[in-house]
Amino acid sequence: MTKPAISFWFEFASTYSYLSAMRIETLARERGVDIDWRPFLLGPIFAELGWSTSPFNLQPAKGAYMWRDMERQCERFSLPFTHPVPFPQNGIKAARIAWCLRKSEWIGSFVRAVYAAEFGQGQDISDAAFLACVLVDIGAPAKNVMQRIETGEVKDALRAEVEEAKRLGIFGAPSFVTPDGELFWGNDRLDEALDWALRHPG
Amino acid sequence: MTKPAISFWFEFASTYSYLSAMRIETLARERGVDIDWRPFLLGPIFAELGWSTSPFNLQPAKGAYMWRDMERQCERFSLPFTHPVPFPQNGIKAARIAWCLRKSEWIGSFVRAVYAAEFGQGQDISDAAFLACVLVDIGAPAKNVMQRIETGEVKDALRAEVEEAKRLGIFGAPSFVTPDGELFWGNDRLDEALDWALRHPG
Repeated sequence: MTKPAISFWFEFASTYSYLSAMRIETLARERGVDIDWRPFLLGPIFAELGWSTSPFNLQPAKGAYMWRDMERQCERFSLPFTHPVPFPQNGIKAARIAWCLRKSEWIGSFVRAVYAAEFGQGQDISDAAFLACVLVDIGAPAKNVMQRIETGEVKDALRAEVEEAKRLGIFGAPSFVTPDGELFWGNDRLDEALDWALRHPG
Repeated sequence: MTKPAISFWFEFASTYSYLSAMRIETLARERGVDIDWRPFLLGPIFAELGWSTSPFNLQPAKGAYMWRDMERQCERFSLPFTHPVPFPQNGIKAARIAWCLRKSEWIGSFVRAVYAAEFGQGQDISDAAFLACVLVDIGAPAKNVMQRIETGEVKDALRAEVEEAKRLGIFGAPSFVTPDGELFWGNDRLDEALDWALRHPG
């Protein structure tokens, strides 16, 4: 029997991905579930629906609700929260870095540092200098990674991840996929997805 | 101090409203929270966004996910589940009846009977004969209620409820509003909304 595992599909601009990103490593470790970190972009998926921005911007009532709900959820999980401006932020460079680091020891720390800066402090995460600092802080090979993310190989790899997300039926973030192909959407399904992964190790 | 209370805004065509409708009375009673039953229609709210049908039909990937998620959630709550055809169903008559019964002893039974027929058995709830049967079954004054729902008074009252929903910032169902004005959206927030109502009795 293989070790239980879960794919964690996250988008750096996504508010609810923040809630999962900050908690998933602890929750997965408690259950003995491995995490397959899958950074991706929602922009191209939204564009196919004719959306030019986040649905939270396109639907003002839903957007207003989401910001209040995030305040309440962050309080519940004891996470700091700041409404980042602009929203959504451009997370493409951060996503490419996460793709480079996805199998490394630094992935969890990198993902949490970016989300904490963005939604904990309202910082702009599109900035290359900021991202390089995060890499230095966590002890990752910053210069090497910052060069790699400008290569066609990494750009294409992230594009391929978006295609894979579509193939899996993913339409939002965070999403969780278990080895038997079950898809769970939203931070509200994180525990349920991990429990499913435990019961269905593939 | 007034008794803790919660407004339960539900739409008969809404899948996730089924999950809350079947459980809210028990969960509220356990906590000593009163329920203000607020049937409404999402159609006019969706129409203002340019949508002609449910977002689950407009976004195929989200729709496919929702049906699978409903199967899993119904299993979790030990509720029967059948995908109703067509979807969404026309719940306008059922909503008018619920408006008439909202302050009566029959409201909980009526709401559960309609949702159980729709999502438990896949029955068509738009049919007046079916709705009259439900009223007879639960011992409500069927003939009187079926006549009232064709009056301008009741039609206008339900329209006014849709306007009130918009005013409260409601954009989906189920939604829960506490006396201090907090809005909670989705069956996933039912317990949190009831707990909030307990802590903030208004």
